[in-house]
Amino acid sequence: MNENYLESLPLIDHHCHGLVRRDLDREAFEGLLTEGSGAGPYGGTLFDSQIGMAVRRWCAPVLGLPVHAAPEDYLDRRAELGADEVNTRFLRAAGLAALCVDTGIPEPLLTPVELGELAGAPAYEVVRLEALAEEIAADGTTAAGFADAFRERLAARARDAVAFKSIAAYRVGLAFREGRPSDAEVTEAAGRWLSSGVRRVADETMHRFFVWCAVEHGLPLQFHVAYGDDDVDVHRSNPLLLTGLLRELAPTGTPVMLLHNYPYHREAGYLAQVFPNVFVDVGLATHNTGRRARALLEETLELTPFGKFLYSSDAYGLPELYHLAAVLFRHAVGALLRDATADHSWPESDAPRLARMFTADNARRAYHLNDRAPDARHRTST
Amino acid sequence: MNENYLESLPLIDHHCHGLVRRDLDREAFEGLLTEGSGAGPYGGTLFDSQIGMAVRRWCAPVLGLPVHAAPEDYLDRRAELGADEVNTRFLRAAGLAALCVDTGIPEPLLTPVELGELAGAPAYEVVRLEALAEEIAADGTTAAGFADAFRERLAARARDAVAFKSIAAYRVGLAFREGRPSDAEVTEAAGRWLSSGVRRVADETMHRFFVWCAVEHGLPLQFHVAYGDDDVDVHRSNPLLLTGLLRELAPTGTPVMLLHNYPYHREAGYLAQVFPNVFVDVGLATHNTGRRARALLEETLELTPFGKFLYSSDAYGLPELYHLAAVLFRHAVGALLRDATADHSWPESDAPRLARMFTADNARRAYHLNDRAPDARHRTST
Amino acid sequence: MNENYLESLPLIDHHCHGLVRRDLDREAFEGLLTEGSGAGPYGGTLFDSQIGMAVRRWCAPVLGLPVHAAPEDYLDRRAELGADEVNTRFLRAAGLAALCVDTGIPEPLLTPVELGELAGAPAYEVVRLEALAEEIAADGTTAAGFADAFRERLAARARDAVAFKSIAAYRVGLAFREGRPSDAEVTEAAGRWLSSGVRRVADETMHRFFVWCAVEHGLPLQFHVAYGDDDVDVHRSNPLLLTGLLRELAPTGTPVMLLHNYPYHREAGYLAQVFPNVFVDVGLATHNTGRRARALLEETLELTPFGKFLYSSDAYGLPELYHLAAVLFRHAVGALLRDATADHSWPESDAPRLARMFTADNARRAYHLNDRAPDARHRTST
Repeated sequence: MNENYLESLPLIDHHCHGLVRRDLDREAFEGLLTEGSGAGPYGGTLFDSQIGMAVRRWCAPVLGLPVHAAPEDYLDRRAELGADEVNTRFLRAAGLAALCVDTGIPEPLLTPVELGELAGAPAYEVVRLEALAEEIAADGTTAAGFADAFRERLAARARDAVAFKSIAAYRVGLAFREGRPSDAEVTEAAGRWLSSGVRRVADETMHRFFVWCAVEHGLPLQFHVAYGDDDVDVHRSNPLLLTGLLRELAPTGTPVMLLHNYPYHREAGYLAQVFPNVFVDVGLATHNTGRRARALLEETLELTPFGKFLYSSDAYGLPELYHLAAVLFRHAVGALLRDATADHSWPESDAPRLARMFTADNARRAYHLNDRAPDARHRTST
Repeated sequence: MNENYLESLPLIDHHCHGLVRRDLDREAFEGLLTEGSGAGPYGGTLFDSQIGMAVRRWCAPVLGLPVHAAPEDYLDRRAELGADEVNTRFLRAAGLAALCVDTGIPEPLLTPVELGELAGAPAYEVVRLEALAEEIAADGTTAAGFADAFRERLAARARDAVAFKSIAAYRVGLAFREGRPSDAEVTEAAGRWLSSGVRRVADETMHRFFVWCAVEHGLPLQFHVAYGDDDVDVHRSNPLLLTGLLRELAPTGTPVMLLHNYPYHREAGYLAQVFPNVFVDVGLATHNTGRRARALLEETLELTPFGKFLYSSDAYGLPELYHLAAVLFRHAVGALLRDATADHSWPESDAPRLARMFTADNARRAYHLNDRAPDARHRTST
Repeated sequence: MNENYLESLPLIDHHCHGLVRRDLDREAFEGLLTEGSGAGPYGGTLFDSQIGMAVRRWCAPVLGLPVHAAPEDYLDRRAELGADEVNTRFLRAAGLAALCVDTGIPEPLLTPVELGELAGAPAYEVVRLEALAEEIAADGTTAAGFADAFRERLAARARDAVAFKSIAAYRVGLAFREGRPSDAEVTEAAGRWLSSGVRRVADETMHRFFVWCAVEHGLPLQFHVAYGDDDVDVHRSNPLLLTGLLRELAPTGTPVMLLHNYPYHREAGYLAQVFPNVFVDVGLATHNTGRRARALLEETLELTPFGKFLYSSDAYGLPELYHLAAVLFRHAVGALLRDATADHSWPESDAPRLARMFTADNARRAYHLNDRAPDARHRTST
């Protein structure tokens, strides 16, 4: 396998987000760079981190700067080019075959259509279950009417979507109770929520209801797992807490996508081995850990069957994250295949096939992307 | 230390299982290859995995095929040779000095005597505590009679066994309550179980009772820990959950063997460091993670005192697993000793001694194998 | 960056302990070497471990012995030199710029002043919150008077201290309840404790009260996290259990120092990324894992911003631990910087700056060591 073979393979990014449209000063840039809220009074600049170093190494050249450009020079150049040009350059540099965009973040971000146009690739929508519920509440509903309203809106959105996503991890954790909740239970839970005046839904019964409704549609179901910002209780979103639910979902055949998983990516690999419908990725962690992306890949693939491992960036806000995730993933896969074949553990003749599985073929199969064009609303000009 | 020194050392496999006697088609083979139930509709063949690659690399030559033979060719050759010949070849190739066989799985598998004959090595019995309890229930007992019946049968089986094994991890997890249960508590728990009509015992009081009965006999006590099939709740079988019980067992001097442990092998190493009677292995994970076995070994030995680390395959069903675990373990130990002495961290002159500890001497000491012949029932012809 | 650059950098050891004054026989030496209580009947000598090998490799030469001296020779030479000389040699060899000494262990150990004199560096005091509470109880207090007595004594001790330390991990775990306890709650909890007759405080309300009192003084607050002896429930001291408290403490700006963290150092790195005031180290694990210290460093720095990573030895009892932690840390940092710049992931020109951050600059900034001399009681003669 040629050294540059990985470079030639377009990636399917099966979980990503929109980008900010505005120009960013240093504070705003650092605030979007990691899952932290930015450089603090004690820790110094976030350019001093794995991801910060990776930006200087891999992103600077995309903006026409030398490798390892100083942070100030990098931010100056970024400002000079402007957000549109920067977004365009990094989306193109990522080399994507397709994007599955979680549209659940209400901020003014680039839409899937716009992302697809920048990337020169079809962009599909991933519908966030909790966002749907919160839309219904905002539009006005009764507790008794909620379950039907949710099912209806879900069915309508399912037509244009390639997947659903649950952020239960952020709201109640992943330790779901057994069984599908009855409509009476949902009415009661919805009543508690709607009367609380809190916009965000955070009730185990509700999130479990969303999951079981989603499963009806046969689309892959994505779960945020573990690593995220300071709003998630990481220990309550260990993927192993999903074990009971995964036993219940196995017979449905619904593909379950465990996103991010760090630092529980080995645990996620175990689940991918023992449940026929479970897939894993290490999105978000790939770009945040910079030159350690290779180590994460190796650990994740200890148990994960190679047909169950997916690529995602989980890029959000900064277009650099699309590029960084892609370049670090390609390098990690390339280095793994090089070393595993060099020591004769894996046959050299299989390496190109495995590379294609990891970069796109597994996602294409799991999401049936060959069978569906991006829907009308999200179809790109390419 | 010569490159081939590890090849020359026979292994004591302190925890393994019987093999299937029948010929296997592809579906059956893949169903026994990992802890999953086989190739699913989404993930493709399980030959595309670390263990699948390892089978092609290390097992194909044992069947007279070239390294990295294609899966179809491998399975054809296997069928051509027949299960007996395949079992024989892999058991011999494993290079075992002794086997400690968990006989708790009731399926028609090769017996310890048969395994020992194939391996050309003595085979000892490990008695599974839960299987004993379930035998008693199947034979008929009263709740009030259960405790005595268990103690009697345990004493009888202890005479021919080298160890006991608890699969509490599979039934109730490893978070045991404090103290030895009273006979009254056992009667109550046995009553609940016997009247439930469920064959499998799954009650914290019962499993705790088994453990405390086993401890009376002074034999090593094995615990299934963490990694297993989809029937185990891995997060409920974190070895750290045993901390309280291990504090109680330390004064008894009973050797406690933590099996498998992945992905909590570092946690297990911690327990082996702080409790004088705790031993660890990474059986099952060794062959499942293929070329990553070296990484697991290194992580496990971060804290584990070198006299507390054991070899096991946890092979079950497929004879390939006996060979794979052995070859991957030997290579991992060899590579570790080579690198740790090459960088002068460890003295070269100690390497052969450490190799002998890891492969057999630690197990021989912990199980007192020099003091006991395989019992009459399990003595092999060699 | 020159190969020896790291050797030239003095370390700030932000968490360490006193040393024993007496000569040690083999049993006593092995009893202090790891977190275990010594060589057991099954596991053989603790020289057969990562740390044992590291002692022979790195400590033998400091005592004038060849690299990899045999354990008996090492202990003979140690006895010949005597505890004072051995303490002096290793403290000097560690190459410290400053020490922050946890004085909470009541055994007759070297004091901070004495340690500072041996090390030729200023020694500062870290006040253990639980020790303070237990002093108050020993001196006599009422339940109703406890809260004020604690606040008064804390204020007095804060004047001479650089930090506080909580060992809640050892007593109740790290899953604190929300909010600052009221004085009435403290009175009730203190009443339970004082009337129990148990010397050690172990009550969630009490430990939480200590934390919130400490925060008033603005000094960094150290938490024992995870790895320790057999008295800690490691799974109850996962740093992620602090997530709720860290959310509450973030607005106070109090630097929170997560100590040790193994095997949850990646989890700790996540917390350091998402909370502006959280710092991490891998003290204790650094010397216990010997040649694996490099691996721990790499894993910890996956998410930890480079300005939030500190050095500590957590040395206790044996002066070897001061030297081992220092030499293994310097080698690990040196090797990381060498490799990360050699593969062009990080710019070579930044390496010396990062080395200075990790060895001393981060600690100097977080503890404001430039602003304060060691207090009168602890000022050293150098």
